Amino acid sequence: MEIKLRQNILAANDKLAAKLKEIFENKGIYVINLMASPGAGKTSFILQTIEALKDDLNVAVIEGDIASKVDAEKVREHGVAAIQINTGGACHLDANMIRGALNMLDLDSLDIIIIENVGNLVCPVEFDLGETVKMVILSVPEGDDKPLKYPSIFVESEVLVLNKIDLLDYVDFNLESLENGLNGLNPAINIFKVSCKYASGIDEWASWLKGQIRKKSKFLTD
Amino acid sequence: MEIKLRQNILAANDKLAAKLKEIFENKGIYVINLMASPGAGKTSFILQTIEALKDDLNVAVIEGDIASKVDAEKVREHGVAAIQINTGGACHLDANMIRGALNMLDLDSLDIIIIENVGNLVCPVEFDLGETVKMVILSVPEGDDKPLKYPSIFVESEVLVLNKIDLLDYVDFNLESLENGLNGLNPAINIFKVSCKYASGIDEWASWLKGQIRKKSKFLTD
Repeated sequence: MEIKLRQNILAANDKLAAKLKEIFENKGIYVINLMASPGAGKTSFILQTIEALKDDLNVAVIEGDIASKVDAEKVREHGVAAIQINTGGACHLDANMIRGALNMLDLDSLDIIIIENVGNLVCPVEFDLGETVKMVILSVPEGDDKPLKYPSIFVESEVLVLNKIDLLDYVDFNLESLENGLNGLNPAINIFKVSCKYASGIDEWASWLKGQIRKKSKFLTD
Repeated sequence: MEIKLRQNILAANDKLAAKLKEIFENKGIYVINLMASPGAGKTSFILQTIEALKDDLNVAVIEGDIASKVDAEKVREHGVAAIQINTGGACHLDANMIRGALNMLDLDSLDIIIIENVGNLVCPVEFDLGETVKMVILSVPEGDDKPLKYPSIFVESEVLVLNKIDLLDYVDFNLESLENGLNGLNPAINIFKVSCKYASGIDEWASWLKGQIRKKSKFLTD
């Protein structure tokens, strides 16, 4: 009974996510579903990404949190539209929450929407949001063994951002172990090493992202 | 329908957890339900705790993970019984999983069981495991704003272990902000500041824990 209901919930979510995907494609909007543990640096990474894109592209952010609205406020300070979703306890965003947030955005003006999912390496990966790309941030202090422990999110993500590389000297983290773990799960994953605190590695990431958006969007003429 | 079923699942879990609690109390076993984000240092903290207790107390560990059995193996290397639960994707342990693990332990010989929950700041807190005490580990690199973002786990926990304090000089973390956040949620929470990497702060924690066990257990005579 529990399993059956869960399947129904996921099937209903998938159906709605497919509709959202169609909307995003029709409007030429590139959508990132950004997932990570609590404290991996999702919001800092979004702020760095906004700074790297905002001269060329129209960006909006959807912030998912259990509680609080501080993340959306931080984003708005960077001159970008931000919608805060409070899940009221739920451990992930779902397509229905995104549909609600889209009503508050001017989709015709947007090139990219970054969705910050709830901080959680497990549950968000099961719920498609109609996104163009799923991404995971792993921060160096979390350890190089996370793909082994939480495999699904690393299998489903097209991009891995390794954040807080400025801490590599102060913690036990072996890049080779991380790469070995990823090779067994998702050898094609794109890895970007960044430090959001020192804004390092952001240029390479932003350049890759602009290339992806250029391929997908009808708006970006460069 | 979804909410109703969820309530039923939680009610069934609570019922079984109450039975487990009775078993633990009858056997005089102190049980810790240890929760944290991925990579906060749960396993390292358990290993440090084992070293601090094992001359005086009989310890066992139940390791909850989505996948892999490396944590249980690490614990066994310290000469302590360890049962690995793989949740097969589920984002938390539940009372039924603990019941299964208990069948593999010699309860009459034990003073304390440490349960390492799945790395997740959201879902585990809803599922009682019959534990004596709920604890949360927060690691310094995760940031001082986590109580604001993930309030329930900080409300329900009797103990907060602040791990990786050796990184305080390298990240933006304000102890006062953390304490202010906790004051609004759970002013009575016991805070222990530790560095599992350098084994600092463990004595104070172990001393407090032994005091608690002494109060609860009929086995410890000191």
